[in-house]
Amino acid sequence: MEINLISDTVTKPTNEMLHAMYQARVGDDVYKQDPTVNALEEKVARMFGMEAALFFPSGTMANQTALKLHTNPGDEIICDKWSHIYLYEAGGAAFNSGCSLSLLDGHRGMISADMVKNAINDPEFFHAPLSTLVSIENTTNKGGGACYDIETLKEIKQVCLDHNLKYHLDGARLWNALVAKGQSPKQFGELFDTISVCLSKGLGAPVGSVLVSDAATIKRALRIRKIFGGGMRQAGYLAAAGIYALDNHVERLAEDHRRAKELAFILQRLPWVASVEPVETNILIFTVQSHLDEKFVIQKLKEKSIHISSMGQGKLRMVTHLDYRQVMHEYVLEALQRLQF
Amino acid sequence: MEINLISDTVTKPTNEMLHAMYQARVGDDVYKQDPTVNALEEKVARMFGMEAALFFPSGTMANQTALKLHTNPGDEIICDKWSHIYLYEAGGAAFNSGCSLSLLDGHRGMISADMVKNAINDPEFFHAPLSTLVSIENTTNKGGGACYDIETLKEIKQVCLDHNLKYHLDGARLWNALVAKGQSPKQFGELFDTISVCLSKGLGAPVGSVLVSDAATIKRALRIRKIFGGGMRQAGYLAAAGIYALDNHVERLAEDHRRAKELAFILQRLPWVASVEPVETNILIFTVQSHLDEKFVIQKLKEKSIHISSMGQGKLRMVTHLDYRQVMHEYVLEALQRLQF
Amino acid sequence: MEINLISDTVTKPTNEMLHAMYQARVGDDVYKQDPTVNALEEKVARMFGMEAALFFPSGTMANQTALKLHTNPGDEIICDKWSHIYLYEAGGAAFNSGCSLSLLDGHRGMISADMVKNAINDPEFFHAPLSTLVSIENTTNKGGGACYDIETLKEIKQVCLDHNLKYHLDGARLWNALVAKGQSPKQFGELFDTISVCLSKGLGAPVGSVLVSDAATIKRALRIRKIFGGGMRQAGYLAAAGIYALDNHVERLAEDHRRAKELAFILQRLPWVASVEPVETNILIFTVQSHLDEKFVIQKLKEKSIHISSMGQGKLRMVTHLDYRQVMHEYVLEALQRLQF
Amino acid sequence: MEINLISDTVTKPTNEMLHAMYQARVGDDVYKQDPTVNALEEKVARMFGMEAALFFPSGTMANQTALKLHTNPGDEIICDKWSHIYLYEAGGAAFNSGCSLSLLDGHRGMISADMVKNAINDPEFFHAPLSTLVSIENTTNKGGGACYDIETLKEIKQVCLDHNLKYHLDGARLWNALVAKGQSPKQFGELFDTISVCLSKGLGAPVGSVLVSDAATIKRALRIRKIFGGGMRQAGYLAAAGIYALDNHVERLAEDHRRAKELAFILQRLPWVASVEPVETNILIFTVQSHLDEKFVIQKLKEKSIHISSMGQGKLRMVTHLDYRQVMHEYVLEALQRLQF
Repeated sequence: MEINLISDTVTKPTNEMLHAMYQARVGDDVYKQDPTVNALEEKVARMFGMEAALFFPSGTMANQTALKLHTNPGDEIICDKWSHIYLYEAGGAAFNSGCSLSLLDGHRGMISADMVKNAINDPEFFHAPLSTLVSIENTTNKGGGACYDIETLKEIKQVCLDHNLKYHLDGARLWNALVAKGQSPKQFGELFDTISVCLSKGLGAPVGSVLVSDAATIKRALRIRKIFGGGMRQAGYLAAAGIYALDNHVERLAEDHRRAKELAFILQRLPWVASVEPVETNILIFTVQSHLDEKFVIQKLKEKSIHISSMGQGKLRMVTHLDYRQVMHEYVLEALQRLQF
Repeated sequence: MEINLISDTVTKPTNEMLHAMYQARVGDDVYKQDPTVNALEEKVARMFGMEAALFFPSGTMANQTALKLHTNPGDEIICDKWSHIYLYEAGGAAFNSGCSLSLLDGHRGMISADMVKNAINDPEFFHAPLSTLVSIENTTNKGGGACYDIETLKEIKQVCLDHNLKYHLDGARLWNALVAKGQSPKQFGELFDTISVCLSKGLGAPVGSVLVSDAATIKRALRIRKIFGGGMRQAGYLAAAGIYALDNHVERLAEDHRRAKELAFILQRLPWVASVEPVETNILIFTVQSHLDEKFVIQKLKEKSIHISSMGQGKLRMVTHLDYRQVMHEYVLEALQRLQF
Repeated sequence: MEINLISDTVTKPTNEMLHAMYQARVGDDVYKQDPTVNALEEKVARMFGMEAALFFPSGTMANQTALKLHTNPGDEIICDKWSHIYLYEAGGAAFNSGCSLSLLDGHRGMISADMVKNAINDPEFFHAPLSTLVSIENTTNKGGGACYDIETLKEIKQVCLDHNLKYHLDGARLWNALVAKGQSPKQFGELFDTISVCLSKGLGAPVGSVLVSDAATIKRALRIRKIFGGGMRQAGYLAAAGIYALDNHVERLAEDHRRAKELAFILQRLPWVASVEPVETNILIFTVQSHLDEKFVIQKLKEKSIHISSMGQGKLRMVTHLDYRQVMHEYVLEALQRLQF
Repeated sequence: MEINLISDTVTKPTNEMLHAMYQARVGDDVYKQDPTVNALEEKVARMFGMEAALFFPSGTMANQTALKLHTNPGDEIICDKWSHIYLYEAGGAAFNSGCSLSLLDGHRGMISADMVKNAINDPEFFHAPLSTLVSIENTTNKGGGACYDIETLKEIKQVCLDHNLKYHLDGARLWNALVAKGQSPKQFGELFDTISVCLSKGLGAPVGSVLVSDAATIKRALRIRKIFGGGMRQAGYLAAAGIYALDNHVERLAEDHRRAKELAFILQRLPWVASVEPVETNILIFTVQSHLDEKFVIQKLKEKSIHISSMGQGKLRMVTHLDYRQVMHEYVLEALQRLQF
């Protein structure tokens, strides 16, 4: 039994989800004739109280499409320095949209209204890029699964309104935030111009993300998705897994969060752990004592069939998920306590 | 029973294919850990005698990645005026790669070595774009499923070698060409720098295309696919359908071709049909008499549950495929003969 | 005495123009503080009855800025297949703006309203690029200095209005058209969204083009010019030459036209000339007898200090201009008549 | 008498320079037939011991061309957070080259070899942009005219060689560094792949920058310059000013530096000045006491015909230059001492 705490993207469909996929009614989604994809898009749009939605083969494409929808080449996008759109989308903002990034020095990947305000370039000063978009990530990936208060997001929204900026939410792990904070999708739908959510990761579907927005924007998104080559034919098999996940795998994220907190509780008490970051959702980041090499710790855990990943500079990361079950959890808790360096 | 002759993209998996999908072993393909995707990529690379392959969510993305791999912004791509990369990829050559197209006036979508040679801009004349890539489509979509002689492709290859141009094959329907012409994938693998092939269309898989090339190019392709957002997680379900299709649905394309020819044979004798283009594979283009409105013909056939599409200017198109079965075929043949205008 | 009929770009300032440059009052135009540049911009805007203008280091940059102003990446620009923006701007439409070109098969570089109408892609069909701009060239360069009737331009304008397309005029040699056709700048200012005009070429200034439009568009153009690096410091020296040229060198273009027609008259009667295209302005294109190599003709004229250029396929081009004076003209007329092959 | 200390870009040609411009021999530089432009390019290339050079209408275009020459879309450029290419080139790196920037937190705009090393992304990790270029600015603009030790630049060069990165120098004010540090152009020519130098700013020519590199790179630069629209016709008038400036205005930069230091010496002793940054060249940055509004100080000086600019947050900037003469200097020194707040 190998235990993978490297990422929540590694989950495989449950038998029930696989069964839903097997039975999906499909059609050619390029002609918008796949009933299951259509059902998924309507379902997600309705959840967020927004007009329309579009299915994507990845969260990166959903985000990149959103950046493109809201900007022109030469514009600048304001976001945290740890944003997925900067660190893990291969320079796509510049490649796909010709945009610069204004990288803010936020707290655990989260930024404030004041920081955004200060980062906006004077639109009359044409030597600097034109600020046109603010992109938020919630929960934060590199920030250790931290999640925003809705008040902070409203304050940033006000800055966007005051300065004519669009407002995008990279909600790859928004489901975790909703469950952890007791928030509803509609609270987010009211604030943002576009929201991308992932069906893989915590929800456990094999493939796919959804972008939600108003109908006119989603119509334009269809064209951008086409240009990137993201239009798929009988995609209903993937959409069926997404529908199943939304119906069955959201509430259970609380379990992942509980387990992440229990891991943190144990880690805090271990002599070879220097510090553990606060755990709000399913991501847990901790730092080993400075005399220890993090690679060595990873190796020791691997020998016990526990796989975790490094974030560099002594930091290690564990991510709990659907395939990290209670029996594994108990094994890991015990293994961690027995580990000596 | 609705009979769809609009496109070969509308096919749905057979039960056997669906079963193969259901049983697929999967993993996270973004980490290259999906065994079924890996198996598909190896299988296709081996078929073409090339080093490596990469799975894509669509043929458009496979083509767009190839264009990007072989060009720099400002370059010019030489292709037929009817190319899919020009007509049906939403301006992607300019959007994704910053490239111009030199559109040749070919025959049924096919170009010749001489035409290519004349289209190459003098590299010293920096006022014109730099010619760096020739892109071929085989079989041709808008050209009515026409396919190249291998000799013509070799002559064009020689021009590419003489002028330091790369050579890409959009093989969305290459399988049809192979069966119709009795050619082998390796004959194409020897000629081209990159080849995209589709698992949907004639082969009947629900989603996906594969790009084949040398190992270094495919490594670079992985980065481009990431930028477009084409990296999928547990994509093995889709790959399993592709493997099944390659094993079971290539030879049977001969049936589609036979049926398309039989349709042509009947159509040629109908009084309301002005002309029928030669049929080489599974696409059949015919022109109605000038006094007839093609929209009216489409409507009349629709009333008989037969769906076909217009190409404008009196031209109509039928495409045979896996889901166009013999019983349907006989019904269509009879219905066509009874139709009066 | 070398006689250059290769291009009207080779002219050097007259003493009077040079004197005007020498005496120019200048400032830092990047801060919009160069009084002479400001005066030139105001002057040209007023001539066309438009709100504002912007000085550019080249006609290519003025055109490329206009294309960018009117399009988004992925859009398609409709123009003649012989357009300067396609043939001689190094693929800039794709590089700078990410746009495709829809190349029309016009007459002598001129297109019609019907041709434009047929080239517009259905905006609902997102597989094809979105048509958003029509670009006209007047006079046509490769079309041999042909000029549009104002009625044709009005018809095209109507198509633009009907289909929500922008309308740009590449007026590199518009001054020649105005003089030849007895048209006024204001007639063009009423029709087009942007117009680029050249101060070099026929007018004889050393450097510079001007883009005219409404004030909001020119404000945006300032930002695009900055991105390309077209903002110059004390550019008033160049602008002074432009002002002088506008005041003194427009009417005299009639002389260039007269000389081009006289050259055509002689050429038509020469046995080694197969045909001469109609001459409307200062460009003259003729074809040599098929047994003659055009390179040989160029060489023979060069031996007589007369420099002309080839357009390929037996076509030769002569361009008259400010530095092609009457004494040279008489010498060339005589030399041509004596030439035997 | 208005005294402009806002920027060294505001200088106007001296009579001698203007005379050199007036007498320049010119030709069509687009055909590379302007003898004065050719002479300037050869002169600058020779100064740096490099093979070739190219004249540009602006430093922004010279820099943007260099960024494009060394990168492909999707790449990342490593530079200081205060770089001109980031702050004052309107997002051109993303717009023109599709590149991201990795912004280092340097000292007065200068970065170190270690900082560069840590910023290089692992080329195997395709989720992050590919690092391919390091761009240095010397002297630093926003860094207050600070200049690099040649040893630091050599260390960074070694990192570039070790990691296969290109190395560009934005030498807009390199002449100031050479004079201040007693360095020679050849020391820089040996290190960098491309160097841009400005003929305006300290040197006092009205327009133009030059990019130097090896012959093959400059040949490619010609194409990029064409795409941006930077090819000018009879540009020799501008080049003549550049040649004059190189022959006559380099050594005298020492005067500008002396005056900037004298201004700093006085400012340090004034009660309303909180601090003065070290002055190495012709840029002087100082901070006013926190109870003072910098806008008020600017206004007070303006009333005495002394124009300086704000850098925000209490910082003010003065730039000495060719048109800031000794009589003005003495007036300013006295005026500053008399000023009371």
